[in-house]
Amino acid sequence: MTPACIIDEARLKDNARRMASVADTAGLTLRPHVKTLKSLEAAEIYAPLSSPITVSTLAEAQAFAQAGYTDILYAVGLTPNKLAVINRLLHQEIRLTVLIDSIAAAQMLATQADKLTATLHVAIEIDTDGHRAGVDAQSDDLLRIAAIIDGSATLSLSGVMAHAGASYGAFDNESRQHFAQQECDKSLLAAARLEDAGYSLSMISVGSTPTALSGITYEGVTELRAGVYATFDCVMAGLGVCQYNDIALSVLTSVTGRQADKGWVLIDAGWMALSRDTGTASQPLDCGYGLVCDENGTLLDGWYVQQTNQEHGIIVHRDGLIPDDSQFAYGTMLRILPIHACATAGQFNDYHVTTDNVHVEKIWQRINGW
Amino acid sequence: MTPACIIDEARLKDNARRMASVADTAGLTLRPHVKTLKSLEAAEIYAPLSSPITVSTLAEAQAFAQAGYTDILYAVGLTPNKLAVINRLLHQEIRLTVLIDSIAAAQMLATQADKLTATLHVAIEIDTDGHRAGVDAQSDDLLRIAAIIDGSATLSLSGVMAHAGASYGAFDNESRQHFAQQECDKSLLAAARLEDAGYSLSMISVGSTPTALSGITYEGVTELRAGVYATFDCVMAGLGVCQYNDIALSVLTSVTGRQADKGWVLIDAGWMALSRDTGTASQPLDCGYGLVCDENGTLLDGWYVQQTNQEHGIIVHRDGLIPDDSQFAYGTMLRILPIHACATAGQFNDYHVTTDNVHVEKIWQRINGW
Repeated sequence: MTPACIIDEARLKDNARRMASVADTAGLTLRPHVKTLKSLEAAEIYAPLSSPITVSTLAEAQAFAQAGYTDILYAVGLTPNKLAVINRLLHQEIRLTVLIDSIAAAQMLATQADKLTATLHVAIEIDTDGHRAGVDAQSDDLLRIAAIIDGSATLSLSGVMAHAGASYGAFDNESRQHFAQQECDKSLLAAARLEDAGYSLSMISVGSTPTALSGITYEGVTELRAGVYATFDCVMAGLGVCQYNDIALSVLTSVTGRQADKGWVLIDAGWMALSRDTGTASQPLDCGYGLVCDENGTLLDGWYVQQTNQEHGIIVHRDGLIPDDSQFAYGTMLRILPIHACATAGQFNDYHVTTDNVHVEKIWQRINGW
Repeated sequence: MTPACIIDEARLKDNARRMASVADTAGLTLRPHVKTLKSLEAAEIYAPLSSPITVSTLAEAQAFAQAGYTDILYAVGLTPNKLAVINRLLHQEIRLTVLIDSIAAAQMLATQADKLTATLHVAIEIDTDGHRAGVDAQSDDLLRIAAIIDGSATLSLSGVMAHAGASYGAFDNESRQHFAQQECDKSLLAAARLEDAGYSLSMISVGSTPTALSGITYEGVTELRAGVYATFDCVMAGLGVCQYNDIALSVLTSVTGRQADKGWVLIDAGWMALSRDTGTASQPLDCGYGLVCDENGTLLDGWYVQQTNQEHGIIVHRDGLIPDDSQFAYGTMLRILPIHACATAGQFNDYHVTTDNVHVEKIWQRINGW
């Protein structure tokens, strides 16, 4: 029944191999971010049980810990109201690392540290591109945060973490290498300052899909994080980080009708299925809410989802072609390539997995919520 | 734990009373659209068990039928691959009405009609404003569709349905009345043509929140549909259909940090919690990804969520004020009013319900998926 979220397992495996090879070549540990698909079954392909992982919610942390993952980085700035769940996770004898970037957060942790039932690892987030969170690698706060963490018996300073989010605006590999190198340099600078102050660090963690695939050598860092590379999406293809036919996730939809005078094909995938993400609007090729493929995943050149309501999508052709029964008869099934796979996948509770793009062989579950 | 979705039950009840009063005054049946909250517990307030309802997915239809609702309109153009579920619903002895707008869809239904185990009611969607789906009220197709439906023993033509979606762009009540009257006039024209052709109709269904609250008399139609009025949101407030303090849904979030030099407050509600909807971007007051309130729901003047990543939001002040510890200390909880309540609610599996804006008294479940 449509809409449904389809995963092309062969492409997922190819994408996983590509990133694993990057990490191998650089001699780095790969710590995949499981936030795109949030699925234990999917993770078997790109983040097997022995792998360290990154999570975006404590719901993911709990599900993956329950499944046997033992090294988990929760890569969103910790808040006080999450400590009870953090403590429950520590009961499971995993190595759990949380992220902070302020003296206030360090003080909160120090105040609560005697309630922790096992060692909680703490990484300090470094701001390398002014994109979001993090402290400056050269700031006094960096050393003050470290001192506060180091003063608590149940807290262990594991190191530093950076995310070069600004690389999502970098349209050529030279720019992406610039962001990647900057991410490394500032992370290494922060780590050096901490080590000079006497702290021993086990984690210097960097990564984003665009920087990780840019081909720098990553000397000195300990691990690479990335997430959306597993499925890729139109934003990544628009940046040139992948090709459209690398995209491993799509939304199966049915044609509900046409408004021929306007050149519209109506489908039963609106923003509830595709998400409201319009991340390619600022790219040279605006793909609207997604590019249109036939039922077996072959791109239909020029057709894209231009508008969405909750359960309605409107497909048009870039050059104004009028859709007809040959491609868009009532009831025809199509597949829509996602603008932003993390957002589109987030609209579903499960995935329909195919290896031949004809049959659905299995269903994978997704871990939603927080 | 944050982020969480909060419902202010007192406001929900006020909003429900307001729409019920509109329907009462006009002498119309109200058929609430349950697509915003998709919750049986919430529906007890604005769509009690005896009420006809509108649904946006068959998952909603199944849950509400199971709970005892007996008159359900599935208001998205039907596709062939949904017939098996439709047939399972008919086993429950409910009055189920589906929507079609083409000869192809009517033919599909007629071909499959002998497999139906009970009468399936069919409404024809009328396009009253060129906004989305539907046939023209004056078209030949209208009568041809009716004839096809009428020719099948298990299909029953119930009438016509229209949705004045273009009213979401109407910033004054006069324009909304125009769209409302146009929606009525064209629906009544279509109904008259069908009745002249000998069909007896039980449903002339119109509605959208902006048109339903515009104050026209609705003479001749049988029922009014609307959905987002139950919670309202920043889009509706921006149109002038409600006030900001009517909004009954918000996202509870925590401050994770600040970047003082940029005037940023970072919070743990990103687009995964707030949705990617930026529906006020085309309105005079762009509220970004949501307006900021304190923990108890009082608006903090000028503060709004300007940027989002998956689990990070960035709050700024409209006039560039620098956030400080007085309002935005690390760990402070805030509430974000949604841009589009249907989209924000869709990001959650449940709601935390409060009547006093201090305590959470109960949890309501949401019906996600299709």
